[in-house]
Amino acid sequence: MVVGIIGATGYAGAELVRLLSGHPKVEKLALSSVSYEGEKIDKIYPNFLGEVSLPLLRAENVIATSDVVFSALPHAVGEPFATACMERGIHYIDLSADFRFDESEDVYRAWYGKNYWYPELHKKSIYGLPELNRKKIKELAEKGPVVIGNPGCYPTGGSLGAFPALVKGMYRTDFPVIIDAVSGVTGGGREPSRSFHYAECSDSISAYKVSSHRHSPEIERNLALMAATENNPAPRIIFTPRLAPVNRGILSIIYIPLSEKWSVKANKAYMPPSNEIDLKTDEIRGIYTDFYKDEPFIRVLPSGLTAATNRVRMSNYCDISVHVDINGSTLIVTTAIDNMVKGSAGQAIQNMNILFGFDERAGLDAIPIIF
Amino acid sequence: MVVGIIGATGYAGAELVRLLSGHPKVEKLALSSVSYEGEKIDKIYPNFLGEVSLPLLRAENVIATSDVVFSALPHAVGEPFATACMERGIHYIDLSADFRFDESEDVYRAWYGKNYWYPELHKKSIYGLPELNRKKIKELAEKGPVVIGNPGCYPTGGSLGAFPALVKGMYRTDFPVIIDAVSGVTGGGREPSRSFHYAECSDSISAYKVSSHRHSPEIERNLALMAATENNPAPRIIFTPRLAPVNRGILSIIYIPLSEKWSVKANKAYMPPSNEIDLKTDEIRGIYTDFYKDEPFIRVLPSGLTAATNRVRMSNYCDISVHVDINGSTLIVTTAIDNMVKGSAGQAIQNMNILFGFDERAGLDAIPIIF
Amino acid sequence: MVVGIIGATGYAGAELVRLLSGHPKVEKLALSSVSYEGEKIDKIYPNFLGEVSLPLLRAENVIATSDVVFSALPHAVGEPFATACMERGIHYIDLSADFRFDESEDVYRAWYGKNYWYPELHKKSIYGLPELNRKKIKELAEKGPVVIGNPGCYPTGGSLGAFPALVKGMYRTDFPVIIDAVSGVTGGGREPSRSFHYAECSDSISAYKVSSHRHSPEIERNLALMAATENNPAPRIIFTPRLAPVNRGILSIIYIPLSEKWSVKANKAYMPPSNEIDLKTDEIRGIYTDFYKDEPFIRVLPSGLTAATNRVRMSNYCDISVHVDINGSTLIVTTAIDNMVKGSAGQAIQNMNILFGFDERAGLDAIPIIF
Amino acid sequence: MVVGIIGATGYAGAELVRLLSGHPKVEKLALSSVSYEGEKIDKIYPNFLGEVSLPLLRAENVIATSDVVFSALPHAVGEPFATACMERGIHYIDLSADFRFDESEDVYRAWYGKNYWYPELHKKSIYGLPELNRKKIKELAEKGPVVIGNPGCYPTGGSLGAFPALVKGMYRTDFPVIIDAVSGVTGGGREPSRSFHYAECSDSISAYKVSSHRHSPEIERNLALMAATENNPAPRIIFTPRLAPVNRGILSIIYIPLSEKWSVKANKAYMPPSNEIDLKTDEIRGIYTDFYKDEPFIRVLPSGLTAATNRVRMSNYCDISVHVDINGSTLIVTTAIDNMVKGSAGQAIQNMNILFGFDERAGLDAIPIIF
Repeated sequence: MVVGIIGATGYAGAELVRLLSGHPKVEKLALSSVSYEGEKIDKIYPNFLGEVSLPLLRAENVIATSDVVFSALPHAVGEPFATACMERGIHYIDLSADFRFDESEDVYRAWYGKNYWYPELHKKSIYGLPELNRKKIKELAEKGPVVIGNPGCYPTGGSLGAFPALVKGMYRTDFPVIIDAVSGVTGGGREPSRSFHYAECSDSISAYKVSSHRHSPEIERNLALMAATENNPAPRIIFTPRLAPVNRGILSIIYIPLSEKWSVKANKAYMPPSNEIDLKTDEIRGIYTDFYKDEPFIRVLPSGLTAATNRVRMSNYCDISVHVDINGSTLIVTTAIDNMVKGSAGQAIQNMNILFGFDERAGLDAIPIIF
Repeated sequence: MVVGIIGATGYAGAELVRLLSGHPKVEKLALSSVSYEGEKIDKIYPNFLGEVSLPLLRAENVIATSDVVFSALPHAVGEPFATACMERGIHYIDLSADFRFDESEDVYRAWYGKNYWYPELHKKSIYGLPELNRKKIKELAEKGPVVIGNPGCYPTGGSLGAFPALVKGMYRTDFPVIIDAVSGVTGGGREPSRSFHYAECSDSISAYKVSSHRHSPEIERNLALMAATENNPAPRIIFTPRLAPVNRGILSIIYIPLSEKWSVKANKAYMPPSNEIDLKTDEIRGIYTDFYKDEPFIRVLPSGLTAATNRVRMSNYCDISVHVDINGSTLIVTTAIDNMVKGSAGQAIQNMNILFGFDERAGLDAIPIIF
Repeated sequence: MVVGIIGATGYAGAELVRLLSGHPKVEKLALSSVSYEGEKIDKIYPNFLGEVSLPLLRAENVIATSDVVFSALPHAVGEPFATACMERGIHYIDLSADFRFDESEDVYRAWYGKNYWYPELHKKSIYGLPELNRKKIKELAEKGPVVIGNPGCYPTGGSLGAFPALVKGMYRTDFPVIIDAVSGVTGGGREPSRSFHYAECSDSISAYKVSSHRHSPEIERNLALMAATENNPAPRIIFTPRLAPVNRGILSIIYIPLSEKWSVKANKAYMPPSNEIDLKTDEIRGIYTDFYKDEPFIRVLPSGLTAATNRVRMSNYCDISVHVDINGSTLIVTTAIDNMVKGSAGQAIQNMNILFGFDERAGLDAIPIIF
Repeated sequence: MVVGIIGATGYAGAELVRLLSGHPKVEKLALSSVSYEGEKIDKIYPNFLGEVSLPLLRAENVIATSDVVFSALPHAVGEPFATACMERGIHYIDLSADFRFDESEDVYRAWYGKNYWYPELHKKSIYGLPELNRKKIKELAEKGPVVIGNPGCYPTGGSLGAFPALVKGMYRTDFPVIIDAVSGVTGGGREPSRSFHYAECSDSISAYKVSSHRHSPEIERNLALMAATENNPAPRIIFTPRLAPVNRGILSIIYIPLSEKWSVKANKAYMPPSNEIDLKTDEIRGIYTDFYKDEPFIRVLPSGLTAATNRVRMSNYCDISVHVDINGSTLIVTTAIDNMVKGSAGQAIQNMNILFGFDERAGLDAIPIIF
């Protein structure tokens, strides 16, 4: 199979090149880059020397020779390529935000400042979070070429931690779910900027776009799609991103206010967690474990472990730990992903595997690297 | 003035040595260490070569020659030294948790596993968060020698961000205040351990002691002392600490559920923050700015800035930014401190300055170091 | 094939577990640990959850069931296990220094402070630097079970950079070859210590064991084995290690004084390099490229590139760049390796591949990870 | 005294602002910036909030109101400002390379690609390495306004480590002195670029401009000025810079080939250093200690210590350790400086203190910060 990657020289594109080079079903890659057209990928990324030495072509040429196309372009430029892929009858997996909102052009416009040029495309596209939409993706693929809107990094880690609690109706709806995520810097991409200049972001922790990041509506919609019912409206969310000096990884903490039924009696003021808290935590951990028991990339951690990004680094895993707060009022879920793998290129490949009926772990079997 | 430092070779002790060496009122230091008795401080910390070359004595000798004593010992060993200082009639500033709970021995015992040996001491001790207790500290100092329980690092950053909102009664009491803090590693002290082994904590973000950290009761009590009234009970809190690979700094984010009066109408689902959110944010920022207008070490950040630890690094500042969440339901406050300065040694020196009536900024006028 | 790993819970052991889990010829692993006997490897390294969940056995049990054994034990304890393997007729690959000095017990004793307990073993062991001893390793393997002394991390990067220049006789012998290497911290292993405590080694560069590190004799001997002839004595060396805050990687710079024949006329004092320097550099780069043309893991970098550890990270590559100094008197070679792969576990697997006649890249085909 | 800083928003400029704000003789600062004219410095560097809130003026206005001017501009633009200062009769301290080569315009042109516009200026300027030129600086200052060419960061650390050995004639002249320096990233300045993009330089060690960095001629000339005599020509040098992921600090290692008189008999091949090596090391350490005994910012480290950048961080110190190599042929000197202080802004202030006859440590008495 020939796999095309449009925008191969950004970080997500280069990660696709790296991961797809080891994919057992991929015979050949075809790469494009606007910035470096005519050069070879191992000139731009010398880590590829002796491994991948492909020329960087025009996107059109990549599409014309590929059996499936990944796009790692910036937002708002991918629609023509998606159209070309649909016309050629091949799947198109887009890592930008362009196909994450389906027909809700108003949401996309409000947060990304652009219109849909080809609204028809968005009627047939599907949001590619496998744990939410695996079945729908498979169904669509049976009917013809599919446009996948690959999820954002924050929405992946944030949504996966909340799904089981929401589906089981554990939450009270009069208070938002809070998602507070600390991310590494590769999420900022390859273009140098002050925010990601070593001297200014090393040895520092900062917050940014507090409750105004454009991954907010994506997360909120995921929770609604997964959990909203007639009787149970979806929760509103608060999303806060922070930056820490690590290359890869997002550690999300999700605070879900528990409904009365799921709450535990509060501890005495100033006192340590009660035994009841531990029992409720064990119960909810069991529910989470069961909920995700068939997911190949989700590890609900055993008691005693809390998520850490270096335990999923370089892998497609999402680690999840659950905790009931000291007062018995709130479920606290921690999730860890590698933002470049499960949060981006790895998840896109997982989507390809689903589209083609491959083993979902194909090309994604790297063991996490703790050091 | 001769200043004694007991436990001078731990990180908090060494930071006291560094900061007090530049204090205009300090003529001489006297240092003790159990582990390195008889050696010189610049042998243990060669950064002090040519600057501070004092011998490490026994604690008793330090107390006997000092006009004020700082203790940077581990928990549960300081009471005899506090007693000795009271007997000598000199102030004693303890950086451990031993004097943070006043007469509430039950809370101390529940979290630290020890009893008070000298309960009388705790009747006369005072919790040394100047923004909470400055007046009381001054009053006590007028009457005689004082035992100061210097605050923990997390409680400092967490409490300062919540105080104005609580005092102004902005919060609803049926949901906890959530404090989610990311800390650098110096908080873990000087003793090598796996958690702080470079290869295991670098390039990684992790959470630990989720909602079960022993700084929880300290924070909860601070909020109560500051804000609880007959009509308005103190909020419960949820506290989650995380670790990121930086040396110094704590970035806390405090989520305060707003009472109906302070809430803003929610945005439409999936849509960006409304203008009303910005106006309410400005209003609350004004209140915070006013609340802290006389505080020498608190900077309420102007609109557009969010707290970052590298803007307070090496200084005694606490930076604060305020934000109303996208749904208008929650006040989000970010605070940044240097955990070794405002979160430990610097705050202890601030307490000394208050006890002696010095300029509160004496010895603490270092400009933060962004790189 | 069943592969045994003795000492599986140290960093080199864990890296062997990770890499061998993906090796196409390895059906099963058997692991031992003294410290954690009876526990499972994914309890000690939770990154292995869902991937490798093997129990930690006694070394004897591992040897009894394996077709080849790796030892990642500390120095001076491996000889009995090597003996047991020889008796069972299986290859034994030792990652400690115990079998790096062949029959030169005096050198081993002088630097490691121990005697050989089983001198016979050392008559049959071989130093496992494939680029030096590949042919001998193959020959020995044809005759029976082999003990491999896997090279140290510094000697690997240092020797590979010097070999071609020495073999081609480019050096003058009246001045030492200088090897100055900057290493990441994983070389210090898993045991916490002050030197590798995050707060003390982050954001700092230091030197240690200047010209007295015990990898010196190993490097010096490698150069002699590779290059010394009757007419051309081997060069003496100076070796200086430094530590920088990175997890993996060693960047070595090797200064080889050029013989008159290979020197270029000096530039005018204070002036930039002449054109002749560039031409000589190109000539020597050509010689290096040719020398290593059949080596699967050595990349002689094209003109314009200098070695960097993040271009070989997580791979078994050794990148090499060559430069003639501004005065035309010295060849400057930079080499980059991942100390845990080519500098340790990866090279050990390369040795296994050679012993068994596997494709030398089997299990070692990971593409380097630049971010 | 009013002190002007031209180019105050680059890293060297901001460091001057920070350090001069605490200088006991400085009453007022005047700042300029081309990029941010009209804004305030604490808008550009929010760490200055509440500390320094000065407007950024035009350079002309700064010069017109100052008693001394520092220039932290890029290379090749400072001459007109130097001229203006000379005309106003005030000292001008330039942190760029423009005044480091005195009358050797050919060297400056060869490495920086620019001519001198005002050659007269360079007849009166002086290279501001106090340990080399303190006396001359003082003499010049007695005669009138002085232009100081503040040294580069690498030349400072490299030259100071070599001076005593060269002055004492320990070196042989048929082989170059090798200076291999590992630097942190702040030397690359404030402008974002790929080389200093967090994701590309973190967790990696690299070399660059091997033997072709433009600090080479500056170092070479320093050694000649300090040590060349009629009988003893100055040594040629080889200079290699490397980059490591730290903010501040340069660790230089200087390899000085010892003349026969200073050499020690070589150790037996492969064997540890002899006792004679230790004795010679002690002797040379004594010479270094004596040589620098009156220098306020040089610490020759006691036996057992090797230079590390985190022991000089945030200070104006240069730490030096000396070692004789295992073969007795080469003196190995390690030096550590903070590249932003002794390697830049701090040294510039030291020059100001010398020009005005202030205590040389005024404003530069910060104790190094180890964590």
